Amino acid sequence: MNSILINGDWQSAKSSRAIQAIDPTNRSAVGETFPVSDWADCETVMDAAQAAAVAMEDISLDDLASFLNAYADNLEKNAESICEVANQETGLPVSPRLLDVEMPRTIDQLRQAAAAAKDHGWRNPVHDHDKNIHSCLTPIGPVLIFGPNNFPLAFNAISGGDFAAAIAAGNPVIAKAHPSQPGTSRLLAEQALDAAKRTGMPAGIVQMLYDIDPSDGLKMVADSRIAAVAFTGSRRGGTALKAAADQVGKPIYLEMSSINPVFLLQSALERGEELSDEAAGSCLLAAGQFCTSPNLIVIPKGEKADEFLQAMTAAFKSKPAGTLLSEAVLSSLKSSIEMLVGAGVEILAGGKEAESDAFAFANTLMKIDSKSFLENEDALQTEAFGPASLVVVCEDEQDALAIAKRIHGSLTASVYGKEGDAAMVPLTKILQRVAGRVIHNKMPTGVAVSPAMNHGGPYPATGHPRFTAVGIPASLERFAKLSCFDNVAESFLPACLR
Amino acid sequence: MNSILINGDWQSAKSSRAIQAIDPTNRSAVGETFPVSDWADCETVMDAAQAAAVAMEDISLDDLASFLNAYADNLEKNAESICEVANQETGLPVSPRLLDVEMPRTIDQLRQAAAAAKDHGWRNPVHDHDKNIHSCLTPIGPVLIFGPNNFPLAFNAISGGDFAAAIAAGNPVIAKAHPSQPGTSRLLAEQALDAAKRTGMPAGIVQMLYDIDPSDGLKMVADSRIAAVAFTGSRRGGTALKAAADQVGKPIYLEMSSINPVFLLQSALERGEELSDEAAGSCLLAAGQFCTSPNLIVIPKGEKADEFLQAMTAAFKSKPAGTLLSEAVLSSLKSSIEMLVGAGVEILAGGKEAESDAFAFANTLMKIDSKSFLENEDALQTEAFGPASLVVVCEDEQDALAIAKRIHGSLTASVYGKEGDAAMVPLTKILQRVAGRVIHNKMPTGVAVSPAMNHGGPYPATGHPRFTAVGIPASLERFAKLSCFDNVAESFLPACLR
Repeated sequence: MNSILINGDWQSAKSSRAIQAIDPTNRSAVGETFPVSDWADCETVMDAAQAAAVAMEDISLDDLASFLNAYADNLEKNAESICEVANQETGLPVSPRLLDVEMPRTIDQLRQAAAAAKDHGWRNPVHDHDKNIHSCLTPIGPVLIFGPNNFPLAFNAISGGDFAAAIAAGNPVIAKAHPSQPGTSRLLAEQALDAAKRTGMPAGIVQMLYDIDPSDGLKMVADSRIAAVAFTGSRRGGTALKAAADQVGKPIYLEMSSINPVFLLQSALERGEELSDEAAGSCLLAAGQFCTSPNLIVIPKGEKADEFLQAMTAAFKSKPAGTLLSEAVLSSLKSSIEMLVGAGVEILAGGKEAESDAFAFANTLMKIDSKSFLENEDALQTEAFGPASLVVVCEDEQDALAIAKRIHGSLTASVYGKEGDAAMVPLTKILQRVAGRVIHNKMPTGVAVSPAMNHGGPYPATGHPRFTAVGIPASLERFAKLSCFDNVAESFLPACLR
Repeated sequence: MNSILINGDWQSAKSSRAIQAIDPTNRSAVGETFPVSDWADCETVMDAAQAAAVAMEDISLDDLASFLNAYADNLEKNAESICEVANQETGLPVSPRLLDVEMPRTIDQLRQAAAAAKDHGWRNPVHDHDKNIHSCLTPIGPVLIFGPNNFPLAFNAISGGDFAAAIAAGNPVIAKAHPSQPGTSRLLAEQALDAAKRTGMPAGIVQMLYDIDPSDGLKMVADSRIAAVAFTGSRRGGTALKAAADQVGKPIYLEMSSINPVFLLQSALERGEELSDEAAGSCLLAAGQFCTSPNLIVIPKGEKADEFLQAMTAAFKSKPAGTLLSEAVLSSLKSSIEMLVGAGVEILAGGKEAESDAFAFANTLMKIDSKSFLENEDALQTEAFGPASLVVVCEDEQDALAIAKRIHGSLTASVYGKEGDAAMVPLTKILQRVAGRVIHNKMPTGVAVSPAMNHGGPYPATGHPRFTAVGIPASLERFAKLSCFDNVAESFLPACLR
């Protein structure tokens, strides 16, 4: 049985059960066994994280940055072996994905975070010299991170965006790996630990548990030794953790579910065939397993709409069913499709599990008219995580505005149209109220690691619309508290106020 | 029966019951009767607020600032009549308090907020020109504000810090007045409405209900027409509203309970008599009814400690019992003192209701040793809102550090000592983890309206340690969401991104 990363060492887990990764391309177990930690392990990592948080108060920001950069260097050197295991555990291709896109993104995030760690700007130092009051953002304390299944590197709890942000903001991290990626997480954690040791970080700065019982997860979230929590994953999991955090008034940052509506105006439908390529490509990218995958496409009815639907149906039918990340994703997708069918959608393509050795579901295109959509708007906004999208056919563009007003909090909302189209201004305004990122004439799947990015939005997309999970330095603010120093001599102030 | 402020007009309430203010100096009813609104009124104001939020998207920031400045001017002109009613409803003196301190502070806050409304800096505009992605903070939508009892002007839901911040951030406000101050709130709202009309604001920008049933308050908090909530008041009220907001993933900003510990090191105790004046003055200011009133004073034992305790006891006994704001404050204080006595404190002064026509409780000084404190630390951190403080006598300064580590999330934490004192550095570090504002050699009661101020802190002082309720522009950020525009032409962008 594999060891867990506790307080600077690989140690035997206190565990009474084990997990093993499943290769989703053939549904068979792969790699070594890994422990599901008992509560005793949770206690140990939380104690160590608390001690590390105190020790980190005396670590220079340059040294902190060195750690993140050293980790990035390590990943660069070991990229191939890590991506090989990640491929086995997720079915995501080494190329064009893990090795040439996701790993470079992961490395870039760590380096951007390193630069942000040294930069005082995002800490917002404010001086009132007359009154001798000074304030800035300071580290919040131990951060518990739950990583998702769909980005084994760039969002992994031990290497991804939340990790980079929490560390760069000056906090120790307890990573709860995704149980479907224990081997990948192990390899990443080895590199993190090596970098931490070489750069003189406190022992408990990075720790990792492969898996824990859900009830222990809730207990950890509520424990006073944890200062903040980050979670990327399903709405069900996220809301359970949120309830535990809310109960004790603790910040929790969630990136949960989002239907990412795409509105196509009549002017865009004129080039329907080209658009159907673009839309189908975005819907089916990585088998639709992106947080920003378009689950809903809204079009005005007519000849061009019919042509678009035909082209989309053909595209969904012709592309092979992609491999899903796990049996859980497959079964959740089945339930979502059942719910949508129950709510009245018409299946244009797919709609059932694919015949395959892999976990796979046929590319599924659905249709409904706007009147029926509005009559059952909650059920019809069920996220179908996977290669499935619903097209809502409206009476006209005015009708599309009515749909837009009912969209639940979403990460993104896109509009395709011309600047002069009558619906363009009102639609953009409405969508800005419900989505964290409004996009014109572009599909939502790409999430650039840009300082201007918002990978966030109103609930249920996330737990708080003020914060973003992607984009440095903004993402670091989630793991900070506001600290004020009143009549305090300079020698007592944090570096950014001196 | 008085009318309520709905959608730009004074309208008859849908109400089946009424309230009347009580003059706390003689416990008798004063002023007119005011309606407790039914749910129908809540529906109406929420509809109007939604419409106002949309209309406000087209209001220029200059006009918004004009409204806040016009309101400030109105208050300046009508200060005396408003303070007279506020005095009747709260017992707080016109001078030196309402007219010469709190009203100027209120006016200053509105003017600072007006300046911030025009300033794009706090909206944090970020441009990624290469990728054509742009982001900034944008208005969150209708804000529901619950004001407290202890600052009838500067924290009133229709004129105080939350109001100024929510409006300046571009949002309409629904003020739920404090039911003990209906007359004051009415006079303030009249000036707000006049200013809004004169500056061409949308009808629903400011609305006010004098009172509603608590269950309707919870329903409003959960209603999708409300985008964010601010509350200043008791922990019991705040946590109930928080649960309702959390359930639907809505931002709620609470300023609840805080014991504001003050640590006196041996070097400070050397000037014990002078310090006891300062400490007693702070503890008993406005009969201890400040959010930042020091509820806990921690001292190392010894001769100087005994002298300090004697001087404090004398001061508490000699000062007259101040008037409490309401019967509710009196009865809550009684319960808190009972709980503290039950937890083992020794009463050095006071401990019971004062004999008075007014709502009043004898100035109450309590004592406990550090060992007993640590054995029952939760109960002994019960906030006693009113003229009551607990002194914890430690073995030594090391022992004081152990106390500091157990302090619950607090708005402030003070240390009195010399820069070279051995305990000064560790104590400051520990207190920075638990309190929003760390203070050296000064009592916590003053809360300057400074851009560097933090009137916030970890739970249970507030609901989120990243935000402050006082200090402009930082306090505005609570009522904003992060919005990103990806591939969107400049003409569609909010003013701060153009």
